Amino acid sequence: MAELGAVVAEVRRQRPLVHCLTAAVTMNFVADALLAAGARPMMTETIDEAPTLVTVADALLVNLGTLSVDGAVGIPVTAEVAADRGTPWVLDPVAIGLAPVRTPLARELVRLGPGIIKGNASEVLALAGSGAGGSGPDATDPVTAAERAAALLAERHRSVVAVTGARDLVTDGHRSGTLDRGHPWLARVTGTGCALGGLMAACLAVAEPWPATLAALSWLTIAAEDAAERSRGPGTFKIALLDELAALEPEELDERVGLR
Amino acid sequence: MAELGAVVAEVRRQRPLVHCLTAAVTMNFVADALLAAGARPMMTETIDEAPTLVTVADALLVNLGTLSVDGAVGIPVTAEVAADRGTPWVLDPVAIGLAPVRTPLARELVRLGPGIIKGNASEVLALAGSGAGGSGPDATDPVTAAERAAALLAERHRSVVAVTGARDLVTDGHRSGTLDRGHPWLARVTGTGCALGGLMAACLAVAEPWPATLAALSWLTIAAEDAAERSRGPGTFKIALLDELAALEPEELDERVGLR
Amino acid sequence: MAELGAVVAEVRRQRPLVHCLTAAVTMNFVADALLAAGARPMMTETIDEAPTLVTVADALLVNLGTLSVDGAVGIPVTAEVAADRGTPWVLDPVAIGLAPVRTPLARELVRLGPGIIKGNASEVLALAGSGAGGSGPDATDPVTAAERAAALLAERHRSVVAVTGARDLVTDGHRSGTLDRGHPWLARVTGTGCALGGLMAACLAVAEPWPATLAALSWLTIAAEDAAERSRGPGTFKIALLDELAALEPEELDERVGLR
Repeated sequence: MAELGAVVAEVRRQRPLVHCLTAAVTMNFVADALLAAGARPMMTETIDEAPTLVTVADALLVNLGTLSVDGAVGIPVTAEVAADRGTPWVLDPVAIGLAPVRTPLARELVRLGPGIIKGNASEVLALAGSGAGGSGPDATDPVTAAERAAALLAERHRSVVAVTGARDLVTDGHRSGTLDRGHPWLARVTGTGCALGGLMAACLAVAEPWPATLAALSWLTIAAEDAAERSRGPGTFKIALLDELAALEPEELDERVGLR
Repeated sequence: MAELGAVVAEVRRQRPLVHCLTAAVTMNFVADALLAAGARPMMTETIDEAPTLVTVADALLVNLGTLSVDGAVGIPVTAEVAADRGTPWVLDPVAIGLAPVRTPLARELVRLGPGIIKGNASEVLALAGSGAGGSGPDATDPVTAAERAAALLAERHRSVVAVTGARDLVTDGHRSGTLDRGHPWLARVTGTGCALGGLMAACLAVAEPWPATLAALSWLTIAAEDAAERSRGPGTFKIALLDELAALEPEELDERVGLR
Repeated sequence: MAELGAVVAEVRRQRPLVHCLTAAVTMNFVADALLAAGARPMMTETIDEAPTLVTVADALLVNLGTLSVDGAVGIPVTAEVAADRGTPWVLDPVAIGLAPVRTPLARELVRLGPGIIKGNASEVLALAGSGAGGSGPDATDPVTAAERAAALLAERHRSVVAVTGARDLVTDGHRSGTLDRGHPWLARVTGTGCALGGLMAACLAVAEPWPATLAALSWLTIAAEDAAERSRGPGTFKIALLDELAALEPEELDERVGLR
């Protein structure tokens, strides 16, 4: 089995426990996507419990969408525990730029060295300090505009950075790759970007950041193509996506993704 | 294209950013409904970020269902920012009456002049000060019982008031209309009423309150009829409803809705 | 109609209002499951409103998953109001064991005498004081290992205890029964366990704890079998489960469940 398919197979075999500190609006879909993929989600975010519970997790996702007051307090402490223990983690700095709490919080978190940083072009630019952010959760910059900022971030924090868009860009500061898969309906339902962050964390529990990032991106986008084929609109697509995350054959992944 | 269909077409063309301060239990469905309709949701509610983020929104939805402690603090400040900037907004005073925090909060909010007020008969009566509210989120009064209270509220606050039920009533205090569309399954899944509030906000970003209210009501109820036809029960209906919100042809809306 | 089917028919006839203090990640599915079943959900959890709103509820569900700061404060006060008024209630001590807030909270709550206690084997062992809990929300102990702890808990608190797993165990301390129905996909989507707690509360509003527990377990697991037959994966299964909760014929329930 080729490299990316092997990551998918490992997630299903090891069933990593993924602690998710993530947006309230999409937390249910993130959890369902992780379960469909074969991983196990855990979602508690308060400072009273999250720093304890993260000690049994195999990976951590930190997503700043709909950042709650509890989350803003619990997230940095929990991420620090994960970083100290060497638990791999993913940072998804949703909608930073204009937002007065999450923007400095994301800059503080990135210093703890996430294995993977994932964002749209506007978020990556804002995190690198060279952009003002997008329009709410949506990017206003093209992926190519964030290429240099992504490489800089990756090198500075020894992370893999994934810039998502119609074409996805992945870089570790030295090498980079692009991915042209997926379906426009991914942007017509909530939570697909957040679920991608969750999948990245699941993959990061069983693989190095570079293959983990590419495996998660490929898994979600190929599943999305299969889901779109048997859907009538964004509603049925969202549900079919869960089916396809579960159904995807690891053996076919590398061949179908056609990575460049 | 006739008036209501034109509103739908405008939402799809302008893709308004709709800031939603809404019930935790249904926020995901509200966001999915907005995306399916062609608008863009943003859901942050804390006082630390919502008053800033609302400044880039094209419309605001304030829904008091499952009112959180953070929400009770963040909502009035955010609504005030929207009102001051002239950002159009919708008030959905869910389950007011018995509830000790949201009832006075709704009465405070309505003074800020929402473009649209939407509630079931018991909520509208309670907001007008002439009823004790319903049973939890359900109305215990018929729509007709709220007719005078709705007209009074509309005139007092220069809003359009929509009283939802099996038959929906819309009034601006001077004229009124009723709508007899929809499907009983709309009451057998969560979030359809909240999603209607979201659609009203999206329509209000591109049209005056009167056509915006009627367009949103027609859009949701006609989509519900189409969704019910290809569903087996409330689960598949809820998902099909998203498909149909996306699929509805603006050209057909005015003709099919048969407004009286 | 036999005993369990009669409980289902009563839920549909009385449409009990079920107040749910439940995990953020699955609250939407719990609400949808209750609506599909014919009951009516209400989800407010803050201490400012929940103790007032619970006074109009027919039953209460307390689920400790993703316990928020607001929830940790509001839950004990609300449960006490319910207990004082004789409102029947269900305790679902999700993920207790390692978690520093919910573990003592669950032990405090159980003393208020829930009609039904529902948990996986690790949670029941931890609640009885004889286990360290599971791995996040998942059990690490087999159902049989919790048999004595369940009987002890049931007798001590005059509750019916349901230990859920591939085989479910129900005991009131004197008699016990097991149930071998359901489908593996129940564990591949979020919220089915939480929805079961909600159904138990709905059944408890219209029946004694023993038949209520068995009716809810049978209802969900038989519906799951029917849903799995027409699904392609965990996504479509979750949605079909709602359809089947609504479609299940009370007349068939006792016959099909084959209780031992």
